[in-house]
Amino acid sequence: MLDFLGVFAFAISGGLVGVRRRFDVFGILVLALVTALGGGVVRDLLLGITPPTNLTNLPYMATSVVAGLIAFRFSGSLERVRRFILLADAAGLGAFAISATMIAIQHGHPGIEAILVGTITAIGGGMMRDVFAGLVPSVLTQDVYALPALFGCMATDLCVRLGVFNTVALWTLVALVFGVRVLALRFHWQVPKPKRLTRDEPTQ
Amino acid sequence: MLDFLGVFAFAISGGLVGVRRRFDVFGILVLALVTALGGGVVRDLLLGITPPTNLTNLPYMATSVVAGLIAFRFSGSLERVRRFILLADAAGLGAFAISATMIAIQHGHPGIEAILVGTITAIGGGMMRDVFAGLVPSVLTQDVYALPALFGCMATDLCVRLGVFNTVALWTLVALVFGVRVLALRFHWQVPKPKRLTRDEPTQ
Amino acid sequence: MLDFLGVFAFAISGGLVGVRRRFDVFGILVLALVTALGGGVVRDLLLGITPPTNLTNLPYMATSVVAGLIAFRFSGSLERVRRFILLADAAGLGAFAISATMIAIQHGHPGIEAILVGTITAIGGGMMRDVFAGLVPSVLTQDVYALPALFGCMATDLCVRLGVFNTVALWTLVALVFGVRVLALRFHWQVPKPKRLTRDEPTQ
Repeated sequence: MLDFLGVFAFAISGGLVGVRRRFDVFGILVLALVTALGGGVVRDLLLGITPPTNLTNLPYMATSVVAGLIAFRFSGSLERVRRFILLADAAGLGAFAISATMIAIQHGHPGIEAILVGTITAIGGGMMRDVFAGLVPSVLTQDVYALPALFGCMATDLCVRLGVFNTVALWTLVALVFGVRVLALRFHWQVPKPKRLTRDEPTQ
Repeated sequence: MLDFLGVFAFAISGGLVGVRRRFDVFGILVLALVTALGGGVVRDLLLGITPPTNLTNLPYMATSVVAGLIAFRFSGSLERVRRFILLADAAGLGAFAISATMIAIQHGHPGIEAILVGTITAIGGGMMRDVFAGLVPSVLTQDVYALPALFGCMATDLCVRLGVFNTVALWTLVALVFGVRVLALRFHWQVPKPKRLTRDEPTQ
Repeated sequence: MLDFLGVFAFAISGGLVGVRRRFDVFGILVLALVTALGGGVVRDLLLGITPPTNLTNLPYMATSVVAGLIAFRFSGSLERVRRFILLADAAGLGAFAISATMIAIQHGHPGIEAILVGTITAIGGGMMRDVFAGLVPSVLTQDVYALPALFGCMATDLCVRLGVFNTVALWTLVALVFGVRVLALRFHWQVPKPKRLTRDEPTQ
């Protein structure tokens, strides 16, 4: 269920980035599939699960294609597309962070490994999307992006250790990652930037 | 034999992209090697074959370097370079799609896994080439690119299931993928693009 | 020790690229971590070591974060930042080339495999850094980059075969790779570039 939400949300975000970049329908579908399934493929490679389970999961692929077609049919203003990309991306970030942390723990890698595999899975699909679309990944340019995912993965690992992890905890954690990310977007939470560099005068 | 064709064709395409971007001879050779061997490395990682066989295959590396040097010596007009890139890329696409599907089946992963590993291998080298050269991957921007590879991989899997896969079938399939891709290029087969987005008026 | 030097040097180079691109402090830290640990993750995936050891190595992560913060605090002229990026990158290149070759040999893959895994690890972190920052990787555009790493890996493999590999040999090899790279930068060693392509006249 949780993974389905992540797949759908990331496929929508990937498809919409394709729309924004004016790719054709095939390019949009490929970008939707890469965004939705890429993070999980990286997760399985890191955990040594080969072939990656996402490559045999027809329901996930069908979901990605449907989401890509929905994005393709999407019409509206550039600004609306940008907002929907950010919202869908935030939902995928939350869903994949918690789900990948759980999968890593189930495969016998709790603690720091689960937390990092979770974070990398959550940000991986979006990074692939942006790199393939010729953009700098959101995680590098947008304030407060990787941090909510990292904290969500840490909280998941902690809940499992304390034995209080259940369906309610799971959805609360997903909602928290999503919520913090959306609040950061809404209120433009700023983190410090480096001082502006001076440009050298050319020597004469 | 088949893999050699793919390695040579993709190395030529990688080298020519380097020529087009005016990289020096080392950059051209690195890009030729990445394009020719990158797809196979991804294939082996997906199938759990480590270290990837391409990293121990000296004949493939020598072939890539020779192809890279041929590309480096290539002179002519930008338009001719662009055409040769597209042709070499189409040959590599066909060769790798069929060969990687067969390798996946031989390693005990027929069906959907073989088809997807084949498609990813076929488009992977070219994606790496374009990303490293600072271009948006062909698969996202060029009409009818991933589709011939996908159908070629499906046909290969089907032939193996029906027990009719032999050398004639193999080369027919490679020629079909190559032919469909070249026809798509020649006749500018178009697939739908998303509606143009309206740009919002700035609020005052 | 050697790996620590590579992690620190590459994290500095990653952080400074982030400074140059005006990422915020989180983006700078992510880019420092990716540059410092990315090459080693690729190395472990190629050798079939899962989960990659870098993901469980808290001291390396702490080193990367500290180096990223140092880069963030760095102020000065653009030209000085560029120079420091190149120097830190050369140090990382040397350290990772030798260290990854040794790790591959220890895991039972001497010879061509060790040499290629070493070279890929050495150039991998910097390639990730540049791709994620929206730049064309140094290895493709800068003269004499991959070559010193390749020769350093070959020399390491040779020393191990001859039984003359010790601490002195190790640091000499690192210093050689670093030194050749810095000399190439200092004296602008040029390798041939392809002939300039003629642009076709538009048909009328």
